[in-house]
Amino acid sequence: MGGREQGAGEGNRARIRDLRQAGKKVDGRDQPLELEGDEPDVLLGSDTAPNAVETVLHALTSCLAVGFVYNAAARGIDVESLEFRLDGDLDVRPFLGISQDPRPGYEGIRVSYRVKSNAPRKQIEELCNYVQATSPVMDIIRNPVPVEVVLED
Amino acid sequence: MGGREQGAGEGNRARIRDLRQAGKKVDGRDQPLELEGDEPDVLLGSDTAPNAVETVLHALTSCLAVGFVYNAAARGIDVESLEFRLDGDLDVRPFLGISQDPRPGYEGIRVSYRVKSNAPRKQIEELCNYVQATSPVMDIIRNPVPVEVVLED
Repeated sequence: MGGREQGAGEGNRARIRDLRQAGKKVDGRDQPLELEGDEPDVLLGSDTAPNAVETVLHALTSCLAVGFVYNAAARGIDVESLEFRLDGDLDVRPFLGISQDPRPGYEGIRVSYRVKSNAPRKQIEELCNYVQATSPVMDIIRNPVPVEVVLED
Repeated sequence: MGGREQGAGEGNRARIRDLRQAGKKVDGRDQPLELEGDEPDVLLGSDTAPNAVETVLHALTSCLAVGFVYNAAARGIDVESLEFRLDGDLDVRPFLGISQDPRPGYEGIRVSYRVKSNAPRKQIEELCNYVQATSPVMDIIRNPVPVEVVLED
């Protein structure tokens, strides 16, 4: 599976296009999906859209939510409602070039979640552990991913 | 700085709320920003919005784009246009519980970018190296971030 997108500049827009399976384009997406990015006023943007690090938290929530409801269904666990709350701590000084530490990205992320379900707490926590272990975005955030960057001619 | 959001279920919606600086809420965002998440047909969704791992690519593009134009301006480099293309390779079997390897997340991400600028190629590449080194999302993806998950009562 692959995802592609293009963006340009602050107040940027991404077009998310092909899904490929085993090198073959998956049918069903004739038009690219779009996502917007911006920055809050305090970072010289217009705050018309979430910024990049907020979008990472959304991606993690989205991934955990999908994994949770799919795997709850597979285990016969009834989920009436599911809500995640995420907080991430980030020091903007490295991004702004003011300091080299701490790291530019999140120093830590806290996820708390609330579930309405008849299942016992232990079963919900076991489900959530499984979801964390198999979540693509959790893996991307918790573990290193190699990224190659090339300037085209 | 922190970001928060809530989401629920497949076809999920995130509300992105407070930005806090030094523990104090930053003014300027009275209403939360919203982002949508879904899954393509092939993963049992309705493809109304990008899925979580596509959103990660958008976050990385958004981060690199903002860093690029800010730092280009700071260096007096004129950027007429900037376009990123991202591809990520991901095997869905771990997420689907069919196999324990490879990893659930991206095995690798390739970024290629195209710039219209009068600056020489060497200067563009130096700028891009600096942007990568200071990019919060690049750091989050390339390096491990601790994530704590707690079930609320």
